[in-house]
Amino acid sequence: MSRPGSRTQVGADAPRGTSEFFTVRTVSDALSGFRPARRTAAEIVALDDALGRVPAEPLSAPHALPGFSRATVDGFAVRAADTYGASEGLPSYLDIAGEVQMGEPPEAEVPPGAAVAIATGAPLPAGADAVVKVEHTQAATAELLEVLRPATPGEGMVRADEDAAPGDELVPAGRPLRAQDLGMLAAAGLPELPVNARPRVTVVSTGDELVPADSPSLATGQVRDATAPALAALVREAGGDPHFAGIVPDDRDALAGALRAALPESDVVVVSAGSSVGARDETAAAIASLGEPGIWCHGLALRPGKPTLLADCGGVPVIGLPGNPRSALVVFRLIGMPIVRQVGGCTDPPPEPSVRARLERDLPSAAGRLDVVQVRVAAGEAIPLFGSSSLLSILTAADGYVVVPESATGLAAGTEVEVMLYR
Amino acid sequence: MSRPGSRTQVGADAPRGTSEFFTVRTVSDALSGFRPARRTAAEIVALDDALGRVPAEPLSAPHALPGFSRATVDGFAVRAADTYGASEGLPSYLDIAGEVQMGEPPEAEVPPGAAVAIATGAPLPAGADAVVKVEHTQAATAELLEVLRPATPGEGMVRADEDAAPGDELVPAGRPLRAQDLGMLAAAGLPELPVNARPRVTVVSTGDELVPADSPSLATGQVRDATAPALAALVREAGGDPHFAGIVPDDRDALAGALRAALPESDVVVVSAGSSVGARDETAAAIASLGEPGIWCHGLALRPGKPTLLADCGGVPVIGLPGNPRSALVVFRLIGMPIVRQVGGCTDPPPEPSVRARLERDLPSAAGRLDVVQVRVAAGEAIPLFGSSSLLSILTAADGYVVVPESATGLAAGTEVEVMLYR
Repeated sequence: MSRPGSRTQVGADAPRGTSEFFTVRTVSDALSGFRPARRTAAEIVALDDALGRVPAEPLSAPHALPGFSRATVDGFAVRAADTYGASEGLPSYLDIAGEVQMGEPPEAEVPPGAAVAIATGAPLPAGADAVVKVEHTQAATAELLEVLRPATPGEGMVRADEDAAPGDELVPAGRPLRAQDLGMLAAAGLPELPVNARPRVTVVSTGDELVPADSPSLATGQVRDATAPALAALVREAGGDPHFAGIVPDDRDALAGALRAALPESDVVVVSAGSSVGARDETAAAIASLGEPGIWCHGLALRPGKPTLLADCGGVPVIGLPGNPRSALVVFRLIGMPIVRQVGGCTDPPPEPSVRARLERDLPSAAGRLDVVQVRVAAGEAIPLFGSSSLLSILTAADGYVVVPESATGLAAGTEVEVMLYR
Repeated sequence: MSRPGSRTQVGADAPRGTSEFFTVRTVSDALSGFRPARRTAAEIVALDDALGRVPAEPLSAPHALPGFSRATVDGFAVRAADTYGASEGLPSYLDIAGEVQMGEPPEAEVPPGAAVAIATGAPLPAGADAVVKVEHTQAATAELLEVLRPATPGEGMVRADEDAAPGDELVPAGRPLRAQDLGMLAAAGLPELPVNARPRVTVVSTGDELVPADSPSLATGQVRDATAPALAALVREAGGDPHFAGIVPDDRDALAGALRAALPESDVVVVSAGSSVGARDETAAAIASLGEPGIWCHGLALRPGKPTLLADCGGVPVIGLPGNPRSALVVFRLIGMPIVRQVGGCTDPPPEPSVRARLERDLPSAAGRLDVVQVRVAAGEAIPLFGSSSLLSILTAADGYVVVPESATGLAAGTEVEVMLYR
């Protein structure tokens, strides 16, 4: 968290109730500059539970793979030199010297002038350096084979180390494991793997209006905490392990107490703030009261999502989110998920789906600010969905979002844009 | 599974050992024509466990959301008509009639000519139809407010049913639940949801050469079963629940027995076949021996992946995969995952990541056959990776794959192609 970024100190915009300067950073500054050094420890998981987990170190082949020369076609193992010049008109004649059994070391050797029957996947017998496809042969008698085309050395087979030589890297550290990676590790006989532990992400909700999501009924003025379950889902998508610390009132001491309890057992702490300006100030004040000089920014040049606080509390990144559920989820997707991935050792995040579409209408923006606009996609058009950032229905109706970059002052209708798709 | 597709009966290509015609279908025929009717039953899951699960029915709002008119700015609740014509030079003067507390029903009403202080998210008091931002006001005295700009009705607030009216669909059936969907369902007070059960997918491996993936050492000719763990991962990605029925020998009766045991407790059965032509025949023969006339195709016009068998055994789709691990994974991604999704009620699968890139070299193909070519992507180029389909290293080295469609006879170097990216 040391890289200095551009910093705007806007004393006049300081939220009432805090005496500090109000530091606003750009999203690109946050992504490049707010880089927690914290990493989770390695743990051992079974291969069957390792999909999407992040290898804590590169994993190498303990021995050659497949480990023996193997036929890749059904046919006859031969010495290639014995087939040179063979043709349908003038076949090579070879003695049929036996058959290789699947899954067993070959008994027969292939002496010069001989052929041994072999099925796809079976080990090549000694002496052979090629496999002639059965379609390119013809039995003259039960003991004599006609080879109708010449074989070249290495044809119809893979070498003992063609999938991997001993010590070859099978999967890199830092890239979440994919299905085929698990296949390769299984082939190599690695049924248990060292991976980074899932980062433990504590979510603290604040807001006098909030009641738990499972509250059956509401009084006027109360709302269920919709942000915490949605954040937990995004934490899971980023490979983290979400823990919910409950709802605390919009009160500096209550929040400071919750943070003090959460920090020692968390890799990342997320404060889902109350929605009012006052509530937002309390988050900054509570963090400041922990005695850590770690507030990195009080705001982001982002819409929606300006009232975002980023701090480092003794090595634990703390993300203070805006109070509106939509803003909170936009910020967490943009800033929080990369932090969770990073703390979990992921250096090569999975690609995100996207589609190109033409903007259906103008998107105004301001230079220096990044805008995230929810869109539906239909018939090649990206249709912006506008409305209060308190409305979740705009997010549930959206297929994805368009980013208006910091350098742009807006995008004109008809512009081809990249829509990042939700999945 | 009734839609007729084009069907090629190639008696001459019939695999040795089966007396039936060898039916080859195209991938598009398989995707449109091999449509299992089977669906898993609904089950109830907690919201916290519902990320990615598939709602078994559309879920609707039991009451209006947010449920009360809410301020979206910090300021003063007013009757908009009282502010008409207000300006900095000629402000409207309103009596400050109290303050709304967060999370509590408002005590104060806003009589004509009055204003009530309100924070973002708090419920609008009776009488008010707009919220004036605090920045557009100025306190004349402790009891008198100057409003410097006119407010229009509905400004600075959301209506009680603006996020959802009672009965509005919150999420559709058939689309896997995303983070924001969970947020919306939490807001609506739906802590438990009906979703389709995960399809139970039984994987049977056959092959005399196969030993379990956790075998510490191998004899010459033996290979660890790499395909089953990779298939289990793809089943999970498709929302299924993989079960491994173990490795059975390349023997018709053994496989028929394993199928007979698996079918009653499976929603989908996958046979990961031995690699030889003989082993492939045994799969067809074993299925035929179950007395079901359900073989839909014996092969696909697909490379790699031609020796793929699709069958319907009493309503359970059975997918017989090619023996080479790479071919098996290509086929399962293309054909198997959509079937698992469909059986699990998913009608709107999540978007897949892709990127456009220029082909680094020519890709030859044959008209009428679909080719799947593994590629690395670097500097905007898609670099094809070639080699035996027995090699898993080609899949682990790949960033994604390019599809050469059935209509094309190949793609020229420099062509812009869509690379489907692994994640």
